[in-house]
Parts: sequence; C-alpha cells; structure tokens
Amino acid sequence: MAKSPEQQPPVQAFGWAARDTSGVLTPFKFSRRATGDKDVTFKVLYCGICHSDLHQIKNEWGGTNYPCLPGHEIVGVVTEVGTKVKKFKVGDRVGVGGIVWSCHTCEDCSNNLENYCPKLVLTYNSTYYDGTPTYGGYSDLMVVDEHFVIAIPENLPLDACAPLLCAGITTYSPLRHFGLDRAGMHVGVVGLGGLGHTAVKFAKAFGVKVTVISTSPGKKQEATERLGADSFMVSRDPDQMQAAMGTMDGIIDTVSAQHPLLPLIGLLKSHGKLVMVGAPDKPLELPVFPLLMGRKIVAGSGGGGIKETQEMINFAAKHNITADIELIPMDYVNTAMERLVKADVRYRFVIDIGNTLKAV
Amino acid sequence: MAKSPEQQPPVQAFGWAARDTSGVLTPFKFSRRATGDKDVTFKVLYCGICHSDLHQIKNEWGGTNYPCLPGHEIVGVVTEVGTKVKKFKVGDRVGVGGIVWSCHTCEDCSNNLENYCPKLVLTYNSTYYDGTPTYGGYSDLMVVDEHFVIAIPENLPLDACAPLLCAGITTYSPLRHFGLDRAGMHVGVVGLGGLGHTAVKFAKAFGVKVTVISTSPGKKQEATERLGADSFMVSRDPDQMQAAMGTMDGIIDTVSAQHPLLPLIGLLKSHGKLVMVGAPDKPLELPVFPLLMGRKIVAGSGGGGIKETQEMINFAAKHNITADIELIPMDYVNTAMERLVKADVRYRFVIDIGNTLKAV
Repeated sequence: MAKSPEQQPPVQAFGWAARDTSGVLTPFKFSRRATGDKDVTFKVLYCGICHSDLHQIKNEWGGTNYPCLPGHEIVGVVTEVGTKVKKFKVGDRVGVGGIVWSCHTCEDCSNNLENYCPKLVLTYNSTYYDGTPTYGGYSDLMVVDEHFVIAIPENLPLDACAPLLCAGITTYSPLRHFGLDRAGMHVGVVGLGGLGHTAVKFAKAFGVKVTVISTSPGKKQEATERLGADSFMVSRDPDQMQAAMGTMDGIIDTVSAQHPLLPLIGLLKSHGKLVMVGAPDKPLELPVFPLLMGRKIVAGSGGGGIKETQEMINFAAKHNITADIELIPMDYVNTAMERLVKADVRYRFVIDIGNTLKAV
Repeated sequence: MAKSPEQQPPVQAFGWAARDTSGVLTPFKFSRRATGDKDVTFKVLYCGICHSDLHQIKNEWGGTNYPCLPGHEIVGVVTEVGTKVKKFKVGDRVGVGGIVWSCHTCEDCSNNLENYCPKLVLTYNSTYYDGTPTYGGYSDLMVVDEHFVIAIPENLPLDACAPLLCAGITTYSPLRHFGLDRAGMHVGVVGLGGLGHTAVKFAKAFGVKVTVISTSPGKKQEATERLGADSFMVSRDPDQMQAAMGTMDGIIDTVSAQHPLLPLIGLLKSHGKLVMVGAPDKPLELPVFPLLMGRKIVAGSGGGGIKETQEMINFAAKHNITADIELIPMDYVNTAMERLVKADVRYRFVIDIGNTLKAV
C-alpha cells in the first residue's frame, strides 16, 4: 500500500536497489525516518557484500520485496544522535549488522540473543515496527536504534572490518556457543569463502588447531600460509578424508550448496559437533547411524546477538582480525555479484560507499 | 576359522540362534568361557527383545555373523564369581545390557562412556578380546566381566526391568546428557514403542511435561492415561502439529523408519534439541534453514555407559519405573519377532528364559 506524501519518512536517502528477480542493482531514491530519541544516524562509508544479498536480490529464498536495497555489513561515522542516546555521539565509528530491531521482551531478547527473536526486524527486506520497509547499507545513510549499533574500535580499519558484522559474528558465535574455542582443540572449517576465512582467523586466535576442508586444491597455500590454518584437506579426496576420520572436536560448515554430510560426520570425534552456518536451499541427506554411534550433533547457527557482536568486534580489534577484502566502487556492484556466483573473490567484496556512491 | 576342541571354551551353554538371514531362531548348543578372575557368571532368567535383535538376526544392518544368538536386555541371578570380583556375590540379582567389554583406556572409557569406546565389544554378534564370538541373552547363562554387570535393586521385578538395560538407558541417557531432565520443561517423544514408553516414564519422573507424537491416533488413551503423558499429537495431523510449533525444549525421536524431520524441528523452541535414538537404515532429509533460524540441533545418542546404566536402574527403582511387558515363552520367540515387525506389542516382549528355555 503506497503511503501518502505526508506519511513518507522525511529524510531523503539514496542507494542501489534491485527492482525485480533479475537482481540487477540500480540507483534508487527513497527516504528514511528522522533521527528518533533512541536513534543513531550515520553516514555509510563501507558495506560488505554478503552471499545472502545475492540470494535476496534474486528472490532465491522467496519472500523478497522489491525494491530490495541490500547490505548488512555496514560501517560509517555518526552524524546525529537522538536525545536519549547514551552510547554514541557524533563522529563515532559505528557498524550495523543484520538486525535493526527486536522485541526486547521475549526469552531470546532477555538472553541477548536478539538474532533469534521471533519478531526481529532484519536490516533490509523486512518491515520495521512502524510499518516502513527496511533498506540496507548499499546507501548513503542509516538510521538505527542505538541498541543495534556496534562501536568500532579505533584500531580496526573500517573497510576490512565491515564483513565482521555478518560473516564474522556468524562464525564467531558458534565457535563460542558450541565450545569450539578452547586451545588445543581441533576444528574443521568447510568452505573457504567469506564465512570460512573469518572462521579460520577466529579459531586460530582461540588457540584452536584448524583444518580447512575445501573442494578446491588450489586454496591450500592460501589456507595454510596466508590465513594460518594448520592443515588443508580436499573434501573429494577419500584418502585424505579417511586419514582424518575421528580427529575433530567440531566443524564449522559454511557451504550453502548441496553437499554430503556423511564424510564430515566421520571426521568428528565422539561427541563432536557439526555446525551449519551456510543455508542450502534444499534438504541435505542426514545419515542417522553415525550420529548415534558417537553421540554427535548437527547444529545450525544464525548470526549472533548484539552483545556478542560487540564482544566479537572487540576481540577482533585485540587480535588484529579483519576480513580479507576486495574494495570496489558502487558501480562495480553488479559485476561483483556475477563474480560472487563463481566464488571469484578472496574473500569479501566491500563497497566503498563513502567515496563512490553518487547522489541520484 | 574353526577352533580345535581344546581351544573351545569349556562351559556348555545353550540358547536360540539364527543361522541365516531368514532370521528364524532355533535351539543352539555352544560354549562359554569358564568364570575368569574378574568374571560374574549368572543364570539368565529373563531377556527382553529389542528391535535391534530383529535387525541383526536378519542382517538388515549388514555385518551379522551366523549363528547369531541375540539378546542384550538380560537379567538373572549370580551362580559363580571370579576370585577378584568385588561388587557381586552368588545369589545377587544382576543385569547386562549391550556391552560386555571396552578398552578402559580411551577418552570415552575414562569418562564412563564405554558405549562410545572405539573398541567396545557388544553383548552379541561381536568378537570378545580373547577372539571368541559373543552370544547374547537368549541363552541359559552369561559370563561377563563384573565391570559390565549391573546390580538390580531388590524392589524391581526382574522381568519388567530387563528392557531398562537397553530401551531404558537409551532414552534416560539423552534426557540427562542433553539437559532435557529439568522440571517444567516440555519434551516430545516420537513413537510409542519399547523405547518411547520408557522415555515417557523417565521424563515424567524428572518432572518434565511430555507430549507423545505418534502416527497412531489409537495410542492416545494409552499415552495419556496409562503412561501419564501430558498430551498426545498425531504427527500426520497438520493442525495439531501447527498448534504446537515452537513449544518444545527437546524431542526424543525413537522411530527407526523413514520419517520427515522438518515438522519435528518446527516443534522445537529456539535452541531446542531433536535427539535421535532410533536408527533408520537410510539417510533422512535434513532441512538446514530451520536449524539456523533457531540454533537448533539434531543429535544422536546410542545407549549409555555402565555407571549411568547403574544410576538409571537405581533411579527406576526409586521411582518404580519398569517397562510394560508381554512375557513370552522361549518357543514363542519367532512369532514375537513377526509381531514386532508389525509393532504389535505393548511395549516390550520379554522371554521367560528361566522357566521356558529347555536344554538341547
């Protein structure tokens, strides 16, 4: 239902949005609400491209509302704060991830797990509690309730830390929650993309022994030399997989394509945990007997809460963890999406919004 | 490799064994070892029929060695103990479940989880560390290392407690390990058979609210009135399933046939746990997205360790928990197996070995 002009939010904004399932992004004028009492308004400087942006703009998961303006790895500098804002002031370096609102009353919200709140509002392609659509970070400015704004420590470069707000927390949270963060443990990371490479970095910072499991033999050198993984295995090599059977305390599986779980379950020790953070669109085959034989678990994990996201960013700052990025101008975004389909990026595209997004 | 007469164990024994994949059980003479220093020898009085006995005698899981003499829900009275046996004396009421040996040195054994020891020796269809085949409880006597023998408290009837040694521990252990044992929780039990009915009884004894989920509407009265479940749902009724979405802390899934996991995952709250204790022979379809959205887990659990089995039996004695059984004579066993295929038993067959097994 179109709103009358007086109902439209008052602040002019612009960005790039998809208009249909082609997923092609083009310049888009829209408006945002004025800075509310508890809101932080910030100028967007950088925004990472998450693989889910690609799924959403093409409606591959269903439920996409067009125009769809993606982006949930957003960093920038505060330009205005509401009268009741306590944590931020103009000029602060801030970030926003996948969530811009939750109910604050449910059990998950009470446990700082806003990401599992049944009423949560996603940063884009969602409807805010005031009825307006949410638009993401491929845009010039954001207006966000301060509860959902993350402070970015001074020593983190803004461009390379943007992907931590989604890819980072998505791997950090399950490593912590499922107890795969203890020195001396052995953790596998399946898939060396945007998620996988941050999983390797966090796991190494925890003192964990990391093995990267990939379909691409060509990633071995990168995995072990550049990212610091302890070892590398080709998932399609039965000998390598056999040799590592029963050696891992846990696995972070970042792959969103169809793939067999049986060999991964086999890599786990008894009581080991296979944690899915990628989201294949069709069910995977789950062999039950191997789960029973070792009291193993297959779990899912989706993002992280706001408190934990701040903890993750602070941990990253302390351990000098950032994403490995390719910085691109705004008008390169459609080419970047094509390259993302082919996994042709090491390891995250970040759009230089501040310098290259031109007003429309 | 056939052993020469002087290599054969010296103690004459008899029971009923399957000779081929027909699974038909017939009288069988064999021998067991003499009572060793640490062994307990006991006269078998009762033995439960576990669904896995049926799979094994027909080689439905592969790996069956014939003759296969099944039975791992065994109770009886001690007739002889070895010189180094400390826990038992002649005349004691004892039981043996699925395990008769483990390595005592691995991490799982060190943690009282002999059931996950990579070298564990199963009660039947396995090879003992001395190279002899293991034969189960459809027989007149057992010789078992005392570590794997369970003391049966005086107030438990021997016949109706036999199934606790497998079905009981198989459901008790995951309820405990996965923290589904806290008063006020809501736990679903899928499938109301040998495993399911013990799951209901233990969960109720923990103070948990229990919902039985079954394909058979006819089991409602039994579930709620006889077994004490708080509610009952027909898994094929979408309205009932929809109404219960997101209400359960955990589910014990006892079904070993193919069945959809998606509706069960939907019944779980965020962070809920679906624990498989049945073993479907083919992979099930696992939808990953619903796992991610609520950080849910699908786990397997296989039996329990010896310490926990003793704890379970003591808990059962304290809370007057036994299995609901149909006591049958030895020569009814093949008919019982046919009825078991049709799930025509409420809820466990127990063979009256002591009174009906005739020497051959």
